Amino acid sequence: MDVTEDELIHAIRRVLSGAGPDVIVPVGDDAAVVRPGSGDLVLTTDALVEGSHFVRANTTARDLGAKAIAVNVSDVAAMAGSPRYALCALTLSGEVDAAWVMELFGGMREACDGYACTLVGGNLARGPEVTIVVTVTGEVAPGRAVTRGGARVGDRIVVTGELGTAAAGHRIKRAGRRWDQADLDAIRRADRPQARVGEAQIVARHGVTAMIDVSDGLSLDLSRLCGASGVGAKVRIHALPGGPRALPEEVLGGGEDYELLATMPSTDAVEAARGELEEAFGVPLADVGAIVDGEGLTAVDPHGRERPLPVTGWDHFG
Amino acid sequence: MDVTEDELIHAIRRVLSGAGPDVIVPVGDDAAVVRPGSGDLVLTTDALVEGSHFVRANTTARDLGAKAIAVNVSDVAAMAGSPRYALCALTLSGEVDAAWVMELFGGMREACDGYACTLVGGNLARGPEVTIVVTVTGEVAPGRAVTRGGARVGDRIVVTGELGTAAAGHRIKRAGRRWDQADLDAIRRADRPQARVGEAQIVARHGVTAMIDVSDGLSLDLSRLCGASGVGAKVRIHALPGGPRALPEEVLGGGEDYELLATMPSTDAVEAARGELEEAFGVPLADVGAIVDGEGLTAVDPHGRERPLPVTGWDHFG
Repeated sequence: MDVTEDELIHAIRRVLSGAGPDVIVPVGDDAAVVRPGSGDLVLTTDALVEGSHFVRANTTARDLGAKAIAVNVSDVAAMAGSPRYALCALTLSGEVDAAWVMELFGGMREACDGYACTLVGGNLARGPEVTIVVTVTGEVAPGRAVTRGGARVGDRIVVTGELGTAAAGHRIKRAGRRWDQADLDAIRRADRPQARVGEAQIVARHGVTAMIDVSDGLSLDLSRLCGASGVGAKVRIHALPGGPRALPEEVLGGGEDYELLATMPSTDAVEAARGELEEAFGVPLADVGAIVDGEGLTAVDPHGRERPLPVTGWDHFG
Repeated sequence: MDVTEDELIHAIRRVLSGAGPDVIVPVGDDAAVVRPGSGDLVLTTDALVEGSHFVRANTTARDLGAKAIAVNVSDVAAMAGSPRYALCALTLSGEVDAAWVMELFGGMREACDGYACTLVGGNLARGPEVTIVVTVTGEVAPGRAVTRGGARVGDRIVVTGELGTAAAGHRIKRAGRRWDQADLDAIRRADRPQARVGEAQIVARHGVTAMIDVSDGLSLDLSRLCGASGVGAKVRIHALPGGPRALPEEVLGGGEDYELLATMPSTDAVEAARGELEEAFGVPLADVGAIVDGEGLTAVDPHGRERPLPVTGWDHFG
């Protein structure tokens, strides 16, 4: 690194200046101090590790910073919470310079601004690879957090937006051919994932029983929701909202879409949430199946034929 | 890794079971949800990176887990806060197995229990080295957080406990000779640092003006406090509370002691805090100098002679 730790922190503080009045002690002290709201606190942390989650040559520091924020905000959204504050523990290798780090913080700042979230602190360390660990604290009305564990037999299963697009974007980018607009949209989706904060709150207002964000692939995340709820699921495969460039295996097992997967008590509730989502965000809500007794996932084809749905997706140790 | 991510999370949940009634959603969902207290929120994050902060062969997973918690709790303590909740984002290499990870979480649980703090969530990722990033949220009475920036000319400078012991412990351990009790105490201090939570609150009650924890060495941390406060400091070198095994350079520049370095408005305040600290924790409080106009650190010897005090200590990028 071409600067000292204290010089880098000083430069970072300039990028992050302008924190609101609820930030009592911002970046630069032993800890940040903020004034909490009246809700319950939502706490989550997620890492982007060089070599596992990204290759430095294939991403800009700015996109990477924005993504590190978005993946955490998505977890807060999946609890029906609103993000409030972020911390970033950064491990830097000798391969990156101060300009790269400033771009990274610029991307974090940009994403935070988009989610009305404030980056209030962090830590810098040295290591063999770049690792970006962000923690986001959020807020949810007391007792109104939505877990993975509340799905009940008979519930409808819904998914926002489209699936497989981020995986398709990564694939298309690697292939490196000439791109059309749908290709570019998919690549953009892979590079700059968006968390569904407002969307989650609309779904939550319509009687949602369980919710999770699709970070590791639909089948894996649905199996987690079902496992936590002690139920099984029947998935209408043809109803899954695959993106225009997504292959079938990317729709079922592609990670990083950060769409919401939720269960709702009735088709009326789904209809009502769908209308509101469409109006507020232009985001579709697909009814993709039903929660059933038992365990495991079953795929149902358009002719009503059933087969076990294998769980595929991103397992960090598989 | 010999298990899947979901199996590992399941095992970790067993180690972490028994969260209190203020934990609404514990480990295992998209995010944790907790009920906050009535104070301001204190937020901090710190990393232990293999190769930079530890060598796996020289530490037990249990000590490492406890240390990852302690270093963060120490930052909360330095704001005069009480730790409440911890998150851990863990990057695991192929070199560690599930038993090592369980020991690590055992150590985190042990340390959390000692600080009345609850580990409520985290994240698992793969990487070339083990990285342990802990985030702790704490609480402090509204408006009562103590920053580095409040020292005023004429304030006394105080230090709790003893300095240089952790650095001495690391040195003694590396040397590998036969150890006496003081050696073992120093090694213990290096392996299992203790955060001064209750001590910080006593110091804070006696009119503290600024506070920082000594994580990177007395001279570096004092220069940070002075820089944030816009003042200089005169340090009575002979008054620095060096540990029985600490070399002079370890007393001034050895990191990881996690003692408190604070400024107080008068010798009366120091006396009062000292009495209470001694009674409550058996921890000494040394008066090591005074805040002065200007900038930089000055060393004062027993004969009153002054010389500039060079800033030594742990700079992660120096």
